[in-house]
Amino acid sequence: MIITLLTDFGTSDSYVAEVKAVLLSAAANVTLVDVSHLVAPGDIRAGQYLLSRTWKHFPRGTVHVAIVDPGVGTARRALVAEYDGHRFVAPDNGVLSFLPKDARYASLPVAPSAAATFHGRDVFAPAAARLATGAALDELGERITDPCYMPLPAARHDHLTVIGEVIYVDRFGTLVTNIPGDAVQPGARIRIEDSEAGSLRRTFRDVARGALVAFVGSGGTVEIAVRDGSAARTLGAGVGAEVRA
Amino acid sequence: MIITLLTDFGTSDSYVAEVKAVLLSAAANVTLVDVSHLVAPGDIRAGQYLLSRTWKHFPRGTVHVAIVDPGVGTARRALVAEYDGHRFVAPDNGVLSFLPKDARYASLPVAPSAAATFHGRDVFAPAAARLATGAALDELGERITDPCYMPLPAARHDHLTVIGEVIYVDRFGTLVTNIPGDAVQPGARIRIEDSEAGSLRRTFRDVARGALVAFVGSGGTVEIAVRDGSAARTLGAGVGAEVRA
Amino acid sequence: MIITLLTDFGTSDSYVAEVKAVLLSAAANVTLVDVSHLVAPGDIRAGQYLLSRTWKHFPRGTVHVAIVDPGVGTARRALVAEYDGHRFVAPDNGVLSFLPKDARYASLPVAPSAAATFHGRDVFAPAAARLATGAALDELGERITDPCYMPLPAARHDHLTVIGEVIYVDRFGTLVTNIPGDAVQPGARIRIEDSEAGSLRRTFRDVARGALVAFVGSGGTVEIAVRDGSAARTLGAGVGAEVRA
Repeated sequence: MIITLLTDFGTSDSYVAEVKAVLLSAAANVTLVDVSHLVAPGDIRAGQYLLSRTWKHFPRGTVHVAIVDPGVGTARRALVAEYDGHRFVAPDNGVLSFLPKDARYASLPVAPSAAATFHGRDVFAPAAARLATGAALDELGERITDPCYMPLPAARHDHLTVIGEVIYVDRFGTLVTNIPGDAVQPGARIRIEDSEAGSLRRTFRDVARGALVAFVGSGGTVEIAVRDGSAARTLGAGVGAEVRA
Repeated sequence: MIITLLTDFGTSDSYVAEVKAVLLSAAANVTLVDVSHLVAPGDIRAGQYLLSRTWKHFPRGTVHVAIVDPGVGTARRALVAEYDGHRFVAPDNGVLSFLPKDARYASLPVAPSAAATFHGRDVFAPAAARLATGAALDELGERITDPCYMPLPAARHDHLTVIGEVIYVDRFGTLVTNIPGDAVQPGARIRIEDSEAGSLRRTFRDVARGALVAFVGSGGTVEIAVRDGSAARTLGAGVGAEVRA
Repeated sequence: MIITLLTDFGTSDSYVAEVKAVLLSAAANVTLVDVSHLVAPGDIRAGQYLLSRTWKHFPRGTVHVAIVDPGVGTARRALVAEYDGHRFVAPDNGVLSFLPKDARYASLPVAPSAAATFHGRDVFAPAAARLATGAALDELGERITDPCYMPLPAARHDHLTVIGEVIYVDRFGTLVTNIPGDAVQPGARIRIEDSEAGSLRRTFRDVARGALVAFVGSGGTVEIAVRDGSAARTLGAGVGAEVRA
């Protein structure tokens, strides 16, 4: 059984290890996989993006723990969810909004003894361990049908133009947009704010060093990069920048 | 069997993987858990703090490897320790000073072939693998009773006031103090240097954005944070800053 | 079975987890070990250095995945290699040039469905999983004998002097050279550009705080460090700086 971990805890402190200690104490044989712990503190949108592209590559049965939780310790609910054989554990703050409408949800009880600032260790990890060791959704909490829903923005059409935006910037400074690759007309030129990235190419080396390049990225949407450089830095662009195709 | 790893090796280089290679070569079925590899180079105190809050969440039998070792290759001893079913492997420089007085210690021999600058790979990892595969403390070295003891500073009382200090700053810029939560009088106001953080709250969202907030953190001591911000940056405070409650 | 992972993907994004998802989906019982994901983007030389010192510490049978791949999606071949019971999966760009001449190589086919910018997930991970679950080199692709060969520079002799260079800078700012420790004459003084680091010592503490120190590092070559500091910063030196012994 696999448990994946996505948090904004960073990798300097002991928080991730404390979560793993709880998981391994209750579910000795699980395989733990870090998705990322470097989500910017409280950046629910980035957390949602990262998990939305990761979860489906894991085998069914995997438990995905997503802890980007600026409202920890408040009345916000704690959730478990299930979809297509995958299970999810997360605060009810929208981080799971990538799940289709027919996902099922339950609300986790929060024990009074849970540290009010560390539900990752004291609420989410124990729930994930129970799921990984065979518990069903309904054993963990009451079914709910109104999870917080704050999906990433979708691209829209304006006649033949698709208008979207940057939804994530990766390590390489590549600007990931929300424009599906198959929504782009053949030959359409990609524009980001006031710059032009040409028509869609296959990969970085299809342009000269330092040049802008647009392609359909590994997540299936249009990405804008600079070969051997950083599009984010070159363009001064980030999340929210308008992109047209 | 679990082996945890705490080092100041960073995550860019091959050092952590070389340690893991030795562990997995000698103890194929262990589960490796990274506590942190981003301890500031040589910061024994931070290493001690991180391990002190982590180890007890793991199951008994776990082997904890702590390599923050500015004196590597000198005459400082190499230690194995045992307490409450947990085992520890570390240089004898105080990094294990969180262990209670009745922990047991042995001094590891250092083979002449060990790289003088990498006892992590050549001394501590082989010892940890032996512990994980069934060796007892006494099989690894001579019993000693005088390990280097340099505990983190303790808070003290001055009449009704508790006086402590910041002992760790985490990723979020939260200032972790050495004042136990239950040592704080109800209603007492928390002061750090010349600033006032109010009385203890439960969690971040109990104050407005950008405001200082004090609470009993997940390690059981008072912490001072800025909601959706960094107390370390806002206050210009770090390890050693005086805190009163 | 162990699979090691060396990439320039960073640890913020979902890329490493997507690779691991593919590996664990196809080879459920493998143990995954991160070597480093913080190789500078496209720095094939650093990737080669790190893997060259890591691989041999793992047990025979290990599969090593090395993805530093600035030419992803172009006509550059994808390789599997085998040497001394270890297997390697990497782009054909020189990152495996540390392997001896009698290593065996095969060229991996690239499926048209593979994302042109993410062969790590769609080409290299499936190949590694097949190797880890028993496939032989020849089952994965056609044997080739002309892999891209771009070895790290070697030190040379000029009479009694050995002339080498810095080939890697680690987290501590230590300058790792390509001068084998056993090539240095007893008593020889180590010079780096216009600075002098004295004769070889055993370890950091053999000099005063802040002083330069040269020693034979844990990889077997001469390293130049500053005790409790950074030689890279103190000397303003990096990869390529000339070193004489």
